[in-house]
Amino acid sequence: MFQTFDSSDDAPDTAARVKEVRALMAASGLEALLVPRADEHQGEYVPRSAERLRWLTGFSGSAGLAIVARRTAALFVDGRYTVQSRAEVDTAVFQFPDLPRGRVAEWIADHVSATHVVGFDPWLHTVSEIEHLRGKLAAKGIRLKPTPRNLVDRAWGRDRPAPPAAPVRPQALKHTGRAAADKIADVQARLKADGQDACVLTLPDSICWLLNIRGADVAHNPVALAFALVPATGKPELFLAADKLDAAARAHLEPVTRIGEPAQLAARLKALRAADKKVRLDPGTAAYALARALGTALARGADPCIAMKAVKTTAEIKGARAAHLRDGQAMARFLAWLDAHATRGIDEIEAVTRLEACRAETGALREISFDTISGSGANGAIVHYRVSRASNRRLMAGELFLLDSGAQYVDGTTDITRTIAIGKPSAEMRRRFTLVLKGHIAIATARFPKGSRGIDLDPFARRALWEAGLDYDHGTGHGIGSYLSVHEGPQSISRAGMAELVPGMLLSNEPGYYQAGAYGIRIENVVLVTPAEVPEGGERPMMGFETLTLAPIDTRLVERKLLSPAEVAWLDSYHARVRDALSPGLDTESRGWLAAATRAIA
Amino acid sequence: MFQTFDSSDDAPDTAARVKEVRALMAASGLEALLVPRADEHQGEYVPRSAERLRWLTGFSGSAGLAIVARRTAALFVDGRYTVQSRAEVDTAVFQFPDLPRGRVAEWIADHVSATHVVGFDPWLHTVSEIEHLRGKLAAKGIRLKPTPRNLVDRAWGRDRPAPPAAPVRPQALKHTGRAAADKIADVQARLKADGQDACVLTLPDSICWLLNIRGADVAHNPVALAFALVPATGKPELFLAADKLDAAARAHLEPVTRIGEPAQLAARLKALRAADKKVRLDPGTAAYALARALGTALARGADPCIAMKAVKTTAEIKGARAAHLRDGQAMARFLAWLDAHATRGIDEIEAVTRLEACRAETGALREISFDTISGSGANGAIVHYRVSRASNRRLMAGELFLLDSGAQYVDGTTDITRTIAIGKPSAEMRRRFTLVLKGHIAIATARFPKGSRGIDLDPFARRALWEAGLDYDHGTGHGIGSYLSVHEGPQSISRAGMAELVPGMLLSNEPGYYQAGAYGIRIENVVLVTPAEVPEGGERPMMGFETLTLAPIDTRLVERKLLSPAEVAWLDSYHARVRDALSPGLDTESRGWLAAATRAIA
Repeated sequence: MFQTFDSSDDAPDTAARVKEVRALMAASGLEALLVPRADEHQGEYVPRSAERLRWLTGFSGSAGLAIVARRTAALFVDGRYTVQSRAEVDTAVFQFPDLPRGRVAEWIADHVSATHVVGFDPWLHTVSEIEHLRGKLAAKGIRLKPTPRNLVDRAWGRDRPAPPAAPVRPQALKHTGRAAADKIADVQARLKADGQDACVLTLPDSICWLLNIRGADVAHNPVALAFALVPATGKPELFLAADKLDAAARAHLEPVTRIGEPAQLAARLKALRAADKKVRLDPGTAAYALARALGTALARGADPCIAMKAVKTTAEIKGARAAHLRDGQAMARFLAWLDAHATRGIDEIEAVTRLEACRAETGALREISFDTISGSGANGAIVHYRVSRASNRRLMAGELFLLDSGAQYVDGTTDITRTIAIGKPSAEMRRRFTLVLKGHIAIATARFPKGSRGIDLDPFARRALWEAGLDYDHGTGHGIGSYLSVHEGPQSISRAGMAELVPGMLLSNEPGYYQAGAYGIRIENVVLVTPAEVPEGGERPMMGFETLTLAPIDTRLVERKLLSPAEVAWLDSYHARVRDALSPGLDTESRGWLAAATRAIA
Repeated sequence: MFQTFDSSDDAPDTAARVKEVRALMAASGLEALLVPRADEHQGEYVPRSAERLRWLTGFSGSAGLAIVARRTAALFVDGRYTVQSRAEVDTAVFQFPDLPRGRVAEWIADHVSATHVVGFDPWLHTVSEIEHLRGKLAAKGIRLKPTPRNLVDRAWGRDRPAPPAAPVRPQALKHTGRAAADKIADVQARLKADGQDACVLTLPDSICWLLNIRGADVAHNPVALAFALVPATGKPELFLAADKLDAAARAHLEPVTRIGEPAQLAARLKALRAADKKVRLDPGTAAYALARALGTALARGADPCIAMKAVKTTAEIKGARAAHLRDGQAMARFLAWLDAHATRGIDEIEAVTRLEACRAETGALREISFDTISGSGANGAIVHYRVSRASNRRLMAGELFLLDSGAQYVDGTTDITRTIAIGKPSAEMRRRFTLVLKGHIAIATARFPKGSRGIDLDPFARRALWEAGLDYDHGTGHGIGSYLSVHEGPQSISRAGMAELVPGMLLSNEPGYYQAGAYGIRIENVVLVTPAEVPEGGERPMMGFETLTLAPIDTRLVERKLLSPAEVAWLDSYHARVRDALSPGLDTESRGWLAAATRAIA
């Protein structure tokens, strides 16, 4: 079992912990302290040892910032965690300001006197975050000061778990398609072109991509927590705990890297500064502590791996196809089981457990790619819902069940959402599902010129909903890693998607609709950006998408008369492809179910 | 006649003029000199007295930058002027670098030694332009230095025309819908909210909007060239040549402004600096000279009038409707005449002249809103084509004729493009016209939520073309003034349209298709952003467009089978509206023509 279900009955003694932190603040001359959710690597998942925000406040969400002042304390979370944070956190200790996170400076100014000092751990905030906040606080006379050691860790003391030390595994060339040496050469070419002497990498998925390794230091994301320093010429240095490396990992890494301990990194950067080198660091993702160590050696620039790893190699694309085929068979087995049992009293947790078992039966499941969103009825309308023992709910006839899940296989990462009718859906549910489906098809079938960005496609996913006076408050698609993070950049299909799309990129296609307190709808497939065939008479090179995800879309929810003939043709042809691809690997019962589920719509 | 047609036979003696400028440069210790097309107000049109670039080089386009170095000289123009600039300019004197204008610094670095000085007139460049260029040149050791007097003006000498001094006319409250005092109060509220003591206005259309005045200092754009200084409290000061004001204009202005001469402005700004005031200036549109005068008093901020004037008042919207009705009748009379005469040997200039006469017959024409783009056959494929005696071409059977024109009436500014089949169009022309029409209809019928920006709609205009492997290389729509500039911001429908759309904004809707050397297609109407009716079951406030332009779209170019039933319904209903609105004001012949032209498509 990869997914666990909180019973939420182990609430910490927040007041005592905050008191202890305040005593340490006083001893350090700090009027307030920032406690973010992030760790040194700014990843979506952090190891237990870095769950400082949770230890201090009880809040378990994936993003947030606490500010502990001498007499008061606040927790800033975004819209998706408004309800959850108030349920998890002691409201006698923390207030929940109604300010967006960008307005943190205003809260501080209101609660901390000018001339006072606010402390922060320089390893847990990005350069951009600190520069932005420092500028705003300076205008109010308040100073921001790095603490030499993390005060929460000092309060946490011996109970703090040890940092993770999962073994590093080489990722085979047949899966990555490019040797680490080749990728390193590309990064070095970039550095030379930009006139830089070296580059610090702080994102574990960038480092794992570059060196063709994987790890298991955090949940769901098969990365090893590490730093790297890539010189414009010569061997990169990899900084990670030595106990993560066995002989095989060393044999894989030693030809292309030198290996050091994370604690050595800052000293190495100071040496580069002393030698008057220019060292590239990504201010949007790297820890402020590194910029401090670099000082005048700092050269601002995006992590060069981000753009490179977004464009998949032929081997990665082949792997993605295999992973989606395997995952589609697991989904088909699960959906067949669900249809047979849905009205017999299944609950959300059972669905998660069963789905994970179906994936495990493939024999290839390494991890799930994120905690499954398993929302029945009104729970489906909570966009970032995560089922707990307390929220767990039965699937009920006449309701919708939204299931967003994914797997980590050695050859690829998957991410799929299906919305399933339990019993007979209402006419409104069918109409709205069909509008979402129209948006999904509009993305799946889009053809667009070179230079197009995700922002240029996002409106296609929404037009049918807009015409009905409806919309959804999330992006339409995110980038996806190859046996790496299920969310990666730089590309996205969204209001903010300014990165150009390039053949070889993977994206999700996941429009939705949510009726608070009633039901949620989302239809998500993973698509690959491809060069598109240009029809006769066409003049410009075009791109398009190939849908990789293979699983039926619930046709009981489709209102055919709302679809154009072209949309019906897309759905029928997708289902024929799903059936042909999945059937050979299925048991008789699931195969029978699939045949019915993928029948052309009437 | 407002439009004139160059015969291009008065080529200046460029070599002699450049030689004279070089002598002045040498006397000032300058190694190179920037000569931009802009004047002190950065408008689309400049008066004759400010046509320095044209005087020096012969280039008559609306955007460009010359750099005169000691031994060489270059003219930078954008893609639309590549051909024209080489035809107009002495290529023995000027080179035409293949660099985008943003790379001017590279050209300078290649042609000017480090440690040398490049001169510029600080009144003719924006703050942003100079800061950007200065940063790039500094990296190469080259200094950028303002000249105390414009060197081209000194060389031009007595032949230089006097600056314009057209009379200022009050714009009546019935047309503007808001008193100048109210608008001034809004600007002052903005300044107070932003903690600023005053604001410098440099854009003539901002000033004319704010004070409810109009002028005639430049072609096509009914503005008075002026500056203004709006204090956070008290009367604004208007700086303009006193001879532009008659008694009526003074009576209109004196209750709300103090009036000074433009030469006083810099001294006033220095006084504000001495008094330690914060003065807002828009670095993207204001002259560098003003930022220099302000020094430490400079507070960067957008010209507050830009966003305010973009949202039209009820009176302005009423005026726009009246202007479009009147303009539609002129268009109908013109198109009826054209259909009767098109194959009898009409040329592009005759079409322009006749169209202007039809507009003049309304008795309300104040000016045309830009030089008519009258392109037959291959000339229609040149997006910014402007007919000259040399390029003038007959309308020929089997070709398309693209006509993009507009009028300035006291109650509104119009902008309309129609593409007309001369004789029998080819099947390809009809297919492509229909794809452009599909894009036009997709914008006209779009419904979109609050917060949407033009960038969120632009893809709808292109999808049908993209599906056919086609596209067009211009935006889909620009903002439009109310008896002001035909191009205004901040809103646009384009790849760069990040300004939120708000009910009351006017935009053009003008997708196109251009086949170089063959034909051009564009269909342009002006639309008004309105709150949209939300259909039953809709949950969110929506916006939409109301099409204001009233003129037939050539149905001989429509391939009906490429249109959806909804698209056919839009076209038929638009044509019914056009017929009902225009018929009552037309002569019998034009009315008969209109009835046929607006018939429902078969």
